[in-house]
Amino acid sequence: MADGGYPERLRALVDAYLEQLRFSREGATAGLEEAMRYSLLAGGKRVRPVLALATAEALGTEPESVLPLAAAIELIHTYSLIHDDLPAMDDDALRRGRPTCHVAFGEDVAILAGDGLYAEAFAHLLTRSTQPPELVLAAAVELADATGVGGMVGGQYVDVSGGAPAGADGLRRLHELKTGRLIGASVLGVLMLSGIRTGDDQEPLRQYAAELGVLFQIVDDILDVTGTDEALGKPQGSDERHGKRTYVSEFGLDGARRLAQEAHEACATLLDRAADRWGQPPLGALSSITDYVYTRSS
Amino acid sequence: MADGGYPERLRALVDAYLEQLRFSREGATAGLEEAMRYSLLAGGKRVRPVLALATAEALGTEPESVLPLAAAIELIHTYSLIHDDLPAMDDDALRRGRPTCHVAFGEDVAILAGDGLYAEAFAHLLTRSTQPPELVLAAAVELADATGVGGMVGGQYVDVSGGAPAGADGLRRLHELKTGRLIGASVLGVLMLSGIRTGDDQEPLRQYAAELGVLFQIVDDILDVTGTDEALGKPQGSDERHGKRTYVSEFGLDGARRLAQEAHEACATLLDRAADRWGQPPLGALSSITDYVYTRSS
Repeated sequence: MADGGYPERLRALVDAYLEQLRFSREGATAGLEEAMRYSLLAGGKRVRPVLALATAEALGTEPESVLPLAAAIELIHTYSLIHDDLPAMDDDALRRGRPTCHVAFGEDVAILAGDGLYAEAFAHLLTRSTQPPELVLAAAVELADATGVGGMVGGQYVDVSGGAPAGADGLRRLHELKTGRLIGASVLGVLMLSGIRTGDDQEPLRQYAAELGVLFQIVDDILDVTGTDEALGKPQGSDERHGKRTYVSEFGLDGARRLAQEAHEACATLLDRAADRWGQPPLGALSSITDYVYTRSS
Repeated sequence: MADGGYPERLRALVDAYLEQLRFSREGATAGLEEAMRYSLLAGGKRVRPVLALATAEALGTEPESVLPLAAAIELIHTYSLIHDDLPAMDDDALRRGRPTCHVAFGEDVAILAGDGLYAEAFAHLLTRSTQPPELVLAAAVELADATGVGGMVGGQYVDVSGGAPAGADGLRRLHELKTGRLIGASVLGVLMLSGIRTGDDQEPLRQYAAELGVLFQIVDDILDVTGTDEALGKPQGSDERHGKRTYVSEFGLDGARRLAQEAHEACATLLDRAADRWGQPPLGALSSITDYVYTRSS
C-alpha cells in the first residue's frame, strides 16, 4: 500500500492553486517573487496542504473551502526549508534535486524570500478565507502559534543549539516543535475553520495529527540513512554529518523502524476513533496519507 | 520643539508592555527568547508603537486598547532590524550602541530570533486584542500586507538588489515599501481596530501616515551624513559605504533638508485636516511625534 493510495486528486488541487499565486505587484519586486516561486513550486508531495484538504473531507466540507489555509501552510513550510538550508543553518546546497534558494539567488534574497513567504501566507489566509471572521482568526492563531517559539522556529532553535533534553522524550519534544506543530496545524487549522473548537470533538483528530507528525519524523530519520541521494533529492546521510540526534542515532535502525510501526498503528487507531465521531468513508484520504507517510521512499 | 514634546507617557506605556512579554514556555527555547528580548529591549524611541497609541488617542480611544497591535508592530520592526543587520544583508555590527543580534548570539540564532519575533507578533495581535474579530482581522491584514512583498520585505529586496527605479519617484517608492508601509500600519492598523474602514474617514490620517514615513526616511538619510556615531548608536556614513541611494545622494544635503521641511509641513497640514474630522486636542500627540521625527538627532 505505497504511493498508489496517495490522494493525488487533492494534490492536484493544491498544485493548481499554488501555481496561480502571485506576490509581486510591481517590476522592482519581481525578482523576489521569482525566488519565492522557485522554492514553492519545486514539487513534492504537498503532505501538509493535502492533509488539510483531507481533513476538510473528513468533516464533510468541500476541500476547496480550505485551500487558502492549505496554501498558507505550504508557503510557511517552504519558508522554513529556505531558512533551514541557509549557510548559517544546515548549509545545504540541494533540495528536491535542485540548488537550494540561496545557491540559486544569493543568501540575501533567500532570507527575504523566506520572510516574504511567511508574510504572504498570513495575508493570503486572512484575505482569501471565506469562513466567518472569528473562525479565520482562530485558524490564524493556530498557524502563528505553530510557527513561533512554541512551534517550528523554537524547534529549529533547539536543533541548531543542541539544546534538546536527553533521551527519547527530548527527541520527541524537539520534533513536536520543529515539524509536528505545523503538520498538526494542517489538521487543527481546518477544525478551527470549521468551528470545531471544543476539546471532545477535536480530540481524536488532534491526537492523530500529533502522532502523524511523530511518524513523519521517524520515517524522515530512517530515510536519511537508508534512502538514495536520487530518491531524496539531497545527499543521503546528512543528519549524521551534521551530528544531529535522530530516531536512528537514538534507537538504532531496527528500533526506529519499530517506533515507526507503532506510530503508524497509533494513527490508525486514532482515525478509527475519529470515524466513530465523523463517519467512515470521508476519512479514507487521511488513511491514505498516513500510509504514504509510513511507506514513502523520499 | 525638540525631544521635550515627545509623548513620553505613551512611550512609557509601550516600554512597560514590551518588558513583560515572554515568548518561551520551556527551558530548551529560553536562549531564543533571550536573543529576541535582547534586540527588542535595546531601547529606542518606539516611534511606531507610540504612533499607534497616539492615533488611538486622536480617535478618542484609550491608548491601552491598542497595545497588542503596537507591540506586534515593534516586534516586527525589531525582526526587520535583526535580519537587515545580518552579514548577508547590511553586515552591521552595531545597533543602538550595542553589538547586533548575530554578533551577540550567532548568525543562526539571529535568523531564528527574527523569524520568531515575526510569528509571535501575529500570535500576540490575534490573541490579545479585545476588539471584535472582524476588526482584529482587518488590522492583521494591514500588518501582513505592510510587511510582505508589497511592503517591508519587498522594499528590503529592492534595496539589496539595487532595483529601485531611477529618480526621486523610484527612491520614494523604495522607502514607501521598506519603511513607509510599517509606519503607515501603525496608524492604519489602529483605524482598522476602531472600525474606521471607509475611505473618506481614513483619508487624512492615511495620507499623514504616508507622509510621516517619507519624513522619517529623509531625516534618517540626513542623519547618516550629519550625525555622530555616538548619537546614532552605529557608525555614521554607512549608507555611503554600502553604496546606497539616499535622499542626500540624490538631492544633496541642502536638497534633502528642503524636502524634509516640505514633508514636515505636509504632515502638519494633513493633521489639521484630520482635526476637522476628529477634533483638535487629542491630535496633540501625533503633532509631537511629527515634530520629533523632524528634529531628532538619532
